[in-house]
Amino acid sequence: MTTRGYTATKDQLQTRLRRIEGQVRGIERMVEEDRYCIDVLTQISAIQAALDKVALGLLDGHVRHCVTNAAQEGQSEEMSTELMAAVGRLMRRG
Amino acid sequence: MTTRGYTATKDQLQTRLRRIEGQVRGIERMVEEDRYCIDVLTQISAIQAALDKVALGLLDGHVRHCVTNAAQEGQSEEMSTELMAAVGRLMRRG
Amino acid sequence: MTTRGYTATKDQLQTRLRRIEGQVRGIERMVEEDRYCIDVLTQISAIQAALDKVALGLLDGHVRHCVTNAAQEGQSEEMSTELMAAVGRLMRRG
Amino acid sequence: MTTRGYTATKDQLQTRLRRIEGQVRGIERMVEEDRYCIDVLTQISAIQAALDKVALGLLDGHVRHCVTNAAQEGQSEEMSTELMAAVGRLMRRG
Repeated sequence: MTTRGYTATKDQLQTRLRRIEGQVRGIERMVEEDRYCIDVLTQISAIQAALDKVALGLLDGHVRHCVTNAAQEGQSEEMSTELMAAVGRLMRRG
Repeated sequence: MTTRGYTATKDQLQTRLRRIEGQVRGIERMVEEDRYCIDVLTQISAIQAALDKVALGLLDGHVRHCVTNAAQEGQSEEMSTELMAAVGRLMRRG
Repeated sequence: MTTRGYTATKDQLQTRLRRIEGQVRGIERMVEEDRYCIDVLTQISAIQAALDKVALGLLDGHVRHCVTNAAQEGQSEEMSTELMAAVGRLMRRG
Repeated sequence: MTTRGYTATKDQLQTRLRRIEGQVRGIERMVEEDRYCIDVLTQISAIQAALDKVALGLLDGHVRHCVTNAAQEGQSEEMSTELMAAVGRLMRRG
């Protein structure tokens, strides 16, 4: 099994994801307590920034390992198409 | 206590947030199982789209209630500044 | 004719737009001269940031004048819907 | 001189850039004519979408040519860092 691009930083990735999960729960509590809309929105922006960081970390690992290996094995066409589709979704946010 | 802009749609908001929380946990599992980077990225884009929807829903309620009430009470300066700062953060994603 | 939200800052807005027009022409020249892809991309990001600033300036004027006046005249429903559609497009970038 | 990633599609790229330049001039006219803020904002979103398309086209060519060649020549570290910085700027819009 080829090592995933992010394997080396797996712990760091999971720590960030658990923190994001906690932030989402925090927003649920804010809504439950009828907290002011702008304060809830501020937290959502913080989660989006954290998710972007996770996404860029994953993409970085993917480029350095999967994309590079594929290029060296002469298999870069499909890999490039896949990478660009992922970048497009991240830019359009969904 | 003035009703929060989102009070009317609170249940819907909390259902969406719980779903997003579940999606984040889903990504934690994918990383744990060394799933392919692009598949994880696809899920992150889905969460970003869902978060944007929640943010726009909150902002909508805020504009229709808090911003409108403040304008009718001649208090719109500060409210407009706050609203624009929130829109700026959402556009810059954090 | 109701004053447009941005009327007060019209000169500033037009100066920015002319600068952006010049930046786009600059990219045309870079492509003509086969300049390195990453350098062209860096210029595109600079234009996007400049366009966001123009958009936020327009939105700010719109909220402080058009949205506020409509609320005071009890006409905020349609105005809020229009505002939120514009914010949605800006967040999704198109 | 190594062929730029976008050399093959240069005409298409320049056509799009000239169209965007025209759209920016169009907005200058709208502001000059005090057109409604939301209509101007709609045009800005259209330009942002067009710029994103140009950026993704450039990035695609860069990945398929420059990044792939570098990987095959064992020079992917710096290239990956450069690519990821460009993607980060595009996601953060500036």
